[in-house]
Parts: sequence; structure tokens; C-alpha cells
Amino acid sequence: MGETPTSTPGPADDRAASLAQAAIRGDRRALARLLTAVENRSSVAEAAMRRLYPMAGSAHLVGITGPPGAGKSTLVAALIAELRRVGRTVAVIAVDPSSPITGGALLGDRVRMQAYADDDGVFIRSMAARGHAGGLASSTGAAAAVLDAAGFDLVLVETVGTGQSEVEVAAAADTTVVLEAPEMGDEVQAIKAGLLEVADLVVVNKADKPGAQRTASQLRAMLVAAAPKSNRGEADTDRPRPKRPEVLLTTAATGAGVPELLAAIDRHRATGHVAIAETARLARAEAQVWAILADRLRGRLHAPGTTAATTAILRDVADHRLDPYAAADALLESLLRGDG
Amino acid sequence: MGETPTSTPGPADDRAASLAQAAIRGDRRALARLLTAVENRSSVAEAAMRRLYPMAGSAHLVGITGPPGAGKSTLVAALIAELRRVGRTVAVIAVDPSSPITGGALLGDRVRMQAYADDDGVFIRSMAARGHAGGLASSTGAAAAVLDAAGFDLVLVETVGTGQSEVEVAAAADTTVVLEAPEMGDEVQAIKAGLLEVADLVVVNKADKPGAQRTASQLRAMLVAAAPKSNRGEADTDRPRPKRPEVLLTTAATGAGVPELLAAIDRHRATGHVAIAETARLARAEAQVWAILADRLRGRLHAPGTTAATTAILRDVADHRLDPYAAADALLESLLRGDG
Repeated sequence: MGETPTSTPGPADDRAASLAQAAIRGDRRALARLLTAVENRSSVAEAAMRRLYPMAGSAHLVGITGPPGAGKSTLVAALIAELRRVGRTVAVIAVDPSSPITGGALLGDRVRMQAYADDDGVFIRSMAARGHAGGLASSTGAAAAVLDAAGFDLVLVETVGTGQSEVEVAAAADTTVVLEAPEMGDEVQAIKAGLLEVADLVVVNKADKPGAQRTASQLRAMLVAAAPKSNRGEADTDRPRPKRPEVLLTTAATGAGVPELLAAIDRHRATGHVAIAETARLARAEAQVWAILADRLRGRLHAPGTTAATTAILRDVADHRLDPYAAADALLESLLRGDG
Repeated sequence: MGETPTSTPGPADDRAASLAQAAIRGDRRALARLLTAVENRSSVAEAAMRRLYPMAGSAHLVGITGPPGAGKSTLVAALIAELRRVGRTVAVIAVDPSSPITGGALLGDRVRMQAYADDDGVFIRSMAARGHAGGLASSTGAAAAVLDAAGFDLVLVETVGTGQSEVEVAAAADTTVVLEAPEMGDEVQAIKAGLLEVADLVVVNKADKPGAQRTASQLRAMLVAAAPKSNRGEADTDRPRPKRPEVLLTTAATGAGVPELLAAIDRHRATGHVAIAETARLARAEAQVWAILADRLRGRLHAPGTTAATTAILRDVADHRLDPYAAADALLESLLRGDG
């Protein structure tokens, strides 16, 4: 039963078709509009994604993550410069930890990237890290697919690697680069371990600072210690890894070590075992599909005909008259009966 | 149709019943075991929650969040000391950003809390911030309900406020305290704004450091600037706020300002408009119920009879033969048909 949403032709679909065509032709304004639609999860985004998704799949999706202050944005800027130097195109999705209150504060390093405003081989986009985590993964995945379909060679996704959802977003990439700065504090040390689990490549940035070599050695030791544990974490974020991640040193501010990092990124894609890539790609597909499915179900639970019943059940939970498991079963029952 | 999971009596239910009874009697080992079950989402946890949830609802749930290095753990330790001084009981859920690799590294400040190992009025629990974000919200919510049912006056939930999911967990509290340290870097400034949105109280910790007063003034100015925007963010994390959050100064390491902070926390609960509390409580109930519902649905999609079909659909998405929207609709269709 139920009116399964389909891409029936309509105004949204017409608009999506022309935006999608323009984006593929390299129209930057169309691309920017599409990404806004993706971020707002509008019907235009869905219709466009249905057209663009089959054309995606050739870009190398690279996640760049690390704690605040490790120099992620500076490294992204350095990677862009190196990629352009060798004639490759790149799109960047920067998941912005700042909020609507400040209107999305531009970080110092991002200003530097404005140098590429007139370069068709570079496209930079900030996305707000708000909404529920599934939404973030879904929006970022959809945005990456749009940029992939638009023909960029690499799509870099930069996130602050301190929250679970941000780490997941970065870890959904083909190649995940985890950045660390030398000699960070105690609390950041603790975060580091969680990040290392998702790393394909580990970069100690600010290699010109004292302690960089020691940090690299410590990280290598941690990675050796961690290696025997083959099945860590949950299926969503976990994937088997063929070998210990390489630890590289860069000084992003001067560009030192960046060509070597790019070579390592390329090498990771070229030599990644097929089985590994398959697991990562399946996990990424599942995250995207699941987020859409969750949106659909939320929509059903809050549809005009059902939202009153849903709210009554939630109020019973809030008032401790009903436990959340019984409530979940009641809502599931009503979804399956087709009330929703 | 489908077999709706219910709490049919069985070994898990018997074990849950005795654990729940022991936990309510104040048996700390039983409480610890129950929380482990909650974290592992075992069948014992579900059966126990179904018993305990109706007994919860009287504790004051306080979220403490802020960037790394702001001194959250030190402040939590200072709040415990103050609460014990005035004869109130407290449980702490510390969402630990470290990973299974290190075996959950203890932060320096948490060691200090071991002083309460023999005090029945204090219970401290670390929870790993792993799994998908909905899982984190669900586990934390369930753990808080268990500690609430066990009779603690306050339940403090401490999270690193840099990731979306961690912020959401803290924001689901009755009262959300956002901690800032004076004079932090550029990137942290940007994070600050996102955090401020969820704050009921803002605390500038390390008030003895230079710049603390200036940071407090800056924060007050940001809050004034932000105030007119009444409907920010998404429904999940957003709630109307009756008034601008108070900005307080503490030096958690010495305890200065902590009694005043506790008074402000109490005041927030006492004077919070009923409508506000209702919105927050409904949102919290929805997050918990939704996480359970999502678990149930994931379970159906990966049940022995369906997982092959699910994987085939996901592989089509991974290979770009099917777009994720069409895949979500196909899976939804199969769930509603009762294949799952």
C-alpha cells in the first residue's frame, strides 16, 4: 500500500533536469544551487540525484579529518594547490562546525581558498554540521555524488574529527586521511585513538614544530599495538584494513610533504584490495539509503493523518507512562499496518 | 505481519527483573551491569528498561558540554563535591571520546573522581562514543533513565561538544550547561556558536586566567546578537527558549563559582516554562523511541530471510546502477509488505 514517492514528472523534476544538465556542463551556479537543494533536502535535490547518481562513481572520494587546530583547512588548501599544479580537478566539501547564528563563520584558511574563485578546476563548498547525524551523512554523501557526477577528479570531504558523526562522514570516503598536530593535550590524545581506527593514512602536520617526529613515532607505535584487533567497532564504520596505515609528515603551511601525501592517497586507491573497497562502498551506500529511508519513515510518522497519534505516544513516553521500547513497537506496528 | 518483539518472560526477563530490583535497592554492581547491558543493547537491557522506565522521571538531567580543554571533567568533579557537601546524590555519564583501542583511556580528571568509589551518593560511568549517533543518543538516554529510576537526584551527562551527536546528547537534558575556556583559538570560536544554540547556561571556566572576563563579555554579546532568531536549526535539537542563557564564571579547579552554578542549574529547572520543558521532553522521548525503531528496522532489513535482498539492493547503489532514493523506496516497500 502507501503512496511510494516516485519521481513523477513535475515542476521539481523539470527544474532538477535543467540544473543537473547545467551542473554536468560545468555551470558553477547550477552546481551551487543543486548543493543547496541537497543540503535542504528539497524535492529538487531528490529528482536531480535520481538523474545524477548513475553518472557518479569515478571520482576519488577522500576524507580529511582530525581534531581542531591540526591544520585541516591549511592542508586542504595545500592539496588543492598541488592537484592544480599537476592538472587535476578537485571539489571540496567542508563540513562547517560553525552555526547559523554567525552565518557560517569563514575560517582563516578558507579565505585563502577564495584564490580559486575563477578556477573551473576547483569547487569549494561549506556545509553546516547540523541536523541529526544521519542527515549529515546523507547530505554529504549526496553532495559528493553530485560533484562526482559533475566530473571532478577528487572530492575532498573535510570534517572536524571529534564527533562521532563527523568521523563517520570522513570514514565513508574511499581514502580517509587523519590529521594530527604534534604535542597536543591530554584530551586530544584520547580522541586520537578513536580517529586512528578510521585512518587509511595518518598525517602529522606542522612537521616543522618541535615534537613532530616524536608524535609520528608514537602514532606508529599506537598503530602497531592496535593492529591485531581485527574486528573493532560497529559494522557501519568498520571495515577490514589490509595493512597498517602509513604515517606521513607534512607542513601544510609551506607545502612540504604534500606531493608525497598526494602520492600516498593515489597509491591507497590503486592498491586497495577489491574486497576492502567493496565493504567501504557498501557501507557508504547503506548509510545514504538508510538516511533517506529514515527521512521517509519520519515523514510517515508525522504525516497529517498520523502526527497526532505519534505525538500522543511520544507524550506517554515523556511522561513515563509508556517505555520507549513499547512505544517503538506501537509506532512500528502502525507503520506496518499502513496507517502512516 | 511480522513478530513484534515483546517482553515475553524468559531468562533475559528474569535476569532483568532481579538486576532492576537490585539496582533500585542501591546495589552498585547491579547498576553497573545494567548500564553495560544498556550500552551493549542486550535483551536484558530492554527487559530491564521496560521495568525501570515507569519509575524514572524525577531526576534533574543536566548536560555538560564544551570544546576539548574547557575543563568539563574538572567542573563535573567540582559539581559532585558541591552536591555532596549539601547532601544531594548524583550520577555522572561521561561520554568518552576515546576508543576501544586504548581500552577507554581515563582522563586525568576522572581519576580524581575515584575518591567517590565508596560513596553511595555518587555513581560515575564512562560510555564509549561509538556506534552511530542515534545509538549514542539512545544508549545515553536509556542509561540516564536507569540512573533516574535508581533514585539519583541529579544525572550529569558530560560530552565533548564538538560533534553534532555529542551536542545533541547534551542538549537532550533538562538543563544544558555549555562550558567555554577563555581565549581559545579561531576554530574553537567557530564551534562555540553552534554550542551556544543549545545552552541554557553558559560557563566561562578557568576564570582565573587572563581574558576570562573578556570572553564572558564576548559571549554575552553573541547571545544578545543571536536572541532575535527564534526558530533556528532543526526540530530535533531546537527548542524555544524563554530567555537568554545566563553567563557565569567558574574556576572549577578551586571550586570558585561552583555553588553559584549549582544555584543557577536549580533555578533553571524551577523557573523553566512548562511549555519549554514539554518540548524538550518530547524531543528527548522522540530521539529515544526513534533510535529503538531504527534498530528494529535495521534488524528486519538484515534478518536471515531478507539480508541477501537488502545487500543486493545496496550493491546496486554502490555500483551506481540504482540511486539511493529508489533503493530506499524498494526497501521501504519490502518492509511494508512484511518481507522483513
